[in-house]
Amino acid sequence: MTKPSNKHLEELKKIAGPGGWSDDPDILAPHLVEWRDLYKGETPLLLLPDSTDKVAALVRYCHDNCLTLVPQGGNTGLVGGGIPDESGNEILISLKRLNRVRLRDPLNQTITVESGIILADLQIIAEEMDLYFPLSLASEGTCQIGGNISSNAGGVGVLKYGNTRDLVLGLEVVLPDGQIWDGLTGLRKDNTGYDLKQFFIGSEGTLGIVTAATLKLYPRPLNRQTALLAIPSPQAAIELLTLARKMSGDLITAFEIIPRIGLDFLIRHMDATDPLEAAHDWYILMECSSSLDRQHLDLENLFQQIMETAMEHELVVDGVIAQSEQQRDSLWSLRENLSEVQKFEGGSIKHDIAVPVSKIPEFLDRATAAVDRTIPGIRPVPFGHIGDGNIHFNLTQPEGADKAAYLARWEEINKVVHDIVDDLDGSISAEHGIGRLKVEELTRYKSPVALDLMRNLKKTMDPINILNPGRIVK
Amino acid sequence: MTKPSNKHLEELKKIAGPGGWSDDPDILAPHLVEWRDLYKGETPLLLLPDSTDKVAALVRYCHDNCLTLVPQGGNTGLVGGGIPDESGNEILISLKRLNRVRLRDPLNQTITVESGIILADLQIIAEEMDLYFPLSLASEGTCQIGGNISSNAGGVGVLKYGNTRDLVLGLEVVLPDGQIWDGLTGLRKDNTGYDLKQFFIGSEGTLGIVTAATLKLYPRPLNRQTALLAIPSPQAAIELLTLARKMSGDLITAFEIIPRIGLDFLIRHMDATDPLEAAHDWYILMECSSSLDRQHLDLENLFQQIMETAMEHELVVDGVIAQSEQQRDSLWSLRENLSEVQKFEGGSIKHDIAVPVSKIPEFLDRATAAVDRTIPGIRPVPFGHIGDGNIHFNLTQPEGADKAAYLARWEEINKVVHDIVDDLDGSISAEHGIGRLKVEELTRYKSPVALDLMRNLKKTMDPINILNPGRIVK
Repeated sequence: MTKPSNKHLEELKKIAGPGGWSDDPDILAPHLVEWRDLYKGETPLLLLPDSTDKVAALVRYCHDNCLTLVPQGGNTGLVGGGIPDESGNEILISLKRLNRVRLRDPLNQTITVESGIILADLQIIAEEMDLYFPLSLASEGTCQIGGNISSNAGGVGVLKYGNTRDLVLGLEVVLPDGQIWDGLTGLRKDNTGYDLKQFFIGSEGTLGIVTAATLKLYPRPLNRQTALLAIPSPQAAIELLTLARKMSGDLITAFEIIPRIGLDFLIRHMDATDPLEAAHDWYILMECSSSLDRQHLDLENLFQQIMETAMEHELVVDGVIAQSEQQRDSLWSLRENLSEVQKFEGGSIKHDIAVPVSKIPEFLDRATAAVDRTIPGIRPVPFGHIGDGNIHFNLTQPEGADKAAYLARWEEINKVVHDIVDDLDGSISAEHGIGRLKVEELTRYKSPVALDLMRNLKKTMDPINILNPGRIVK
Repeated sequence: MTKPSNKHLEELKKIAGPGGWSDDPDILAPHLVEWRDLYKGETPLLLLPDSTDKVAALVRYCHDNCLTLVPQGGNTGLVGGGIPDESGNEILISLKRLNRVRLRDPLNQTITVESGIILADLQIIAEEMDLYFPLSLASEGTCQIGGNISSNAGGVGVLKYGNTRDLVLGLEVVLPDGQIWDGLTGLRKDNTGYDLKQFFIGSEGTLGIVTAATLKLYPRPLNRQTALLAIPSPQAAIELLTLARKMSGDLITAFEIIPRIGLDFLIRHMDATDPLEAAHDWYILMECSSSLDRQHLDLENLFQQIMETAMEHELVVDGVIAQSEQQRDSLWSLRENLSEVQKFEGGSIKHDIAVPVSKIPEFLDRATAAVDRTIPGIRPVPFGHIGDGNIHFNLTQPEGADKAAYLARWEEINKVVHDIVDDLDGSISAEHGIGRLKVEELTRYKSPVALDLMRNLKKTMDPINILNPGRIVK
C-alpha cells in the first residue's frame, strides 16, 4: 500500500470539509488504543465524515490512490480490528458523526439509523417508541451500532433475541471502491437473490463500511425475574437450561454461569456479599422476561415453580430470587465484575470460546485438566453465557507466580485450550471476532476450504485491499 | 456449456453407482415439471446420490468436464429454479436419497440432518425429541429441507420464528468445483470470520449444493388460540397487529389477511360456510401460541381480551374464536384454499410481494386502483402473510373475460404492480425466489450495484458456471 503523502492528506481534508477531520494528537489519542492495551496504533489522519456521501467520496479517493483505511465505531473492540496498525500509514475513519435517526416506523416495528449512534441511545429511542431494541452488552454506553453490526456483537440477550445479525433487516454500505450499496430495507421477507447484507455483518470492516441500518424492534419486556442459583455441576446447568426453557415457555432471557472462585475473588476484592448461606462450586444467574403484564402471567410464581422443580430434580441446590431492582442489580453486578476482579489476583490469560451447549461439561473438564497439566496451580475462572454455549474461559495465574512469566505463556495456553475447543466442534472466538489478534490462529483451526472461500470473497470485494487489510484474513 | 456425450453420461452413472441414477422417462417425468406448469424441462440423466462424497464426486466430474448440473429437492418450487431447462443439456441431481438424521442433540436444542429429508418428517422427528421445528408451509409433505434452505423458505411461522435462514446454524455444502465445505456447527455464537453459510441460504443452488444442515429447535407450543376477525380496513389490520403483539407478549404466531371476495369464492365453489353473520370487506386469521401450560397462562382469556380491546378501538368489527381443533382447521382451510379456489373464476395473475408492514394499506390502495385502470373489472384477491408484510396479490380475471387473452397480459400487469412495490421499497419476490421466472425482471428493480455484487459472487464461487446457470443472475 501507498504511504499517504502530504498531498494525499490535504486532498482528504478538503473532501472531509471543516470539522470532518483531525490530526490533533490529543484528539487522536483515544482512537489509537484499545482498552485492553494489546495494540497501540499510529495514524496520520482521522477522518470524521457526517454523511454517507462524504464516506463514499473519502473511500473513493483512497481507492483511487491506494491508501489504506481503517473504519472505527466506538472503539470498544478487543482484537485490533478497529484501530490502525503501528506503521502510521493507515488512515482512520470514524463513523461517530454519522449518527442520525433516519426513520422511526413503529407499525413495521423497525428503526433506521446511521452507524455512529451509540447503542445505549438507540435503546432509549426504541423505548420512546414504546418498543424494545434487545442488543445489550457491557460497552453499550460507548459502542456504536455500526461497530456492533461489523462485529456481529453478542451480549446478554442472545439466548432469546440472537446476535446482532438476527436484528438487522437492511444495510447501507460504502464498498471498497467508494460505491454506495443501498440495501436499506424494512422487509421481513425478501427472496430476490443473494442476501448481500450478510457479507458485511461480522466482517469487521474488511468488505465495506456500514453507514446505516434498518433494525428490528420488539414489544417491551414488562416483567422480569432474576435468580442466583447454586448448582451441583455444569452438567446440571445445561439440564436446568432445558427444563427452564421448557417450563417458562421459552422466556429465559439470560443464563450465565459463575464459578465459586469468581465469587471468592469478588468477596475478597470488591466487598461482595456471599448471596447464599453455604459456599457452592457453581452458580447460574438466570433471568426470565415477558412482555405480558402481571394480570396474565404471574412470572414470580412461574419462576418459583421452575426453581422448585429444578430442586426436586437435583439440578439446583439452593438459590435466591431477587425481590427488588436493587437486589437484581447486586446479583448482576456479581456477573459483571467477574472480568475486572481477576486483575487483583495477578495475570489472567483469556479465551472467548463457544461449544455446543451439550458439550460444555466435557469442555470444562478437559480444558481445566489440560491447563493444570501445563501450569500446575493455574486458577480457571470460567464464566459467562453458558446458555449460548459461550464461556469466557479466563485463567488466573497460580498464587504467588510471576505475572510477566505467566503472561508470556499466553499463546501456549491458548493453543492447549483452543485445540480442545476445536476437537469439540467449537469456536475460538464466540463474540469478540478475529481482528489482528487471531488471524494467524484462525489458519490453524479453519479448514483450507473455508479459508479459501474467505480469501476469495475478500479479493472479490476489495481487490486492492484498502479496507482494514490484514484483519480476519491475510 | 458442453452437451453431455454418451461417454460423460456413462462415467456419471459409474460414479453414482447402482440405484444412484435413472434415465427411465417414467421416473424422470415428475422431476421435469413444476406444479404450476410454467416450465417443462428435459434431461439426459437424473442423478440420485445417497452420500455427500457421491455428490462431491459427481460435481467434480461435471466441473472437470464443463457439464451443467441442476440440484433438486422436493420439486415444489414455483420459479423454474429446480428443474432443468428445455435444452436437454442440463443434468439433474436430486438430493432425495440423502435423507438421514446425522445427530439429535436435545440439550443443544439442535438437529443435524441431510438435505433430502422431507419437512413434515423433520417436524415429527423434532416432536419425538419433545422439541419443535417451526418451519411450516403448504408443501411441507413434499418439500425437502435442502430445498427450503436453498430457497430460504418462508411459510406461516415467520412472524415468530423467522424465515428458514433464521433456523440454520450450520451447513455442509458441495462447492461448484466438487470440494466439500464442512460448515456443520451447532454453535449459537461464532465470530471467526465471514459467515459463509449465508452465501448458500437462499441462493437457489447457484453457488453450491447443500447436503446437510444443523438446525435450531424450540420448546413445543402447548397451547394455541385461533380466531377469524372481521376488520374495517387494511390500516386496521396493521394497527391490530401492533396491539396484539404488545398485549400478547409477542405470542402472535400467525396473522393472515383474507379479502371478502376470497371468502365469496370459497362459499361459491368449495362449500365453505360464512363464519360470521354479516359480510365484511376484510378478515384477519390470527393465531397465538405459547409453550407455557394452561396453569400459568390462560391464553383463551388473554385472546378474548385482545379481541375486546381491539373492538373498543374499532380495529375489529366482529369475530369468532375457534372452540375446537375442528373449528380451527375449518378457519385455516379458508386461508389455505384461497390460492386454489381462484381457478374456478378463470385466469389468475399472481404476485408474491412484500412491503414494510406500515405500507401495506398504501400498497393495496395504489395497486388495486392501478390494475383496475389497466384492466377494468379485474378482481384482486389479495391475501396472505400481512404480519410479515407479504401479500399474495393475486388478480382474478374480470367476469366473463377471455382467459387466454387475460393471461397474455401477465407481464404487463406484473410491471404495473411491481413498479408500485418498488416505489414502496418492497420486494417483488417475498418468498418464492427468482429462479428463471424473474431473472429479467430482477434487473429492472435491483440496483446496478447490487446486481454487480451478485454477479461477482457467482463468478467467484462458480467461475465456469456449472451450477444452475441462468437462475437468479445471468
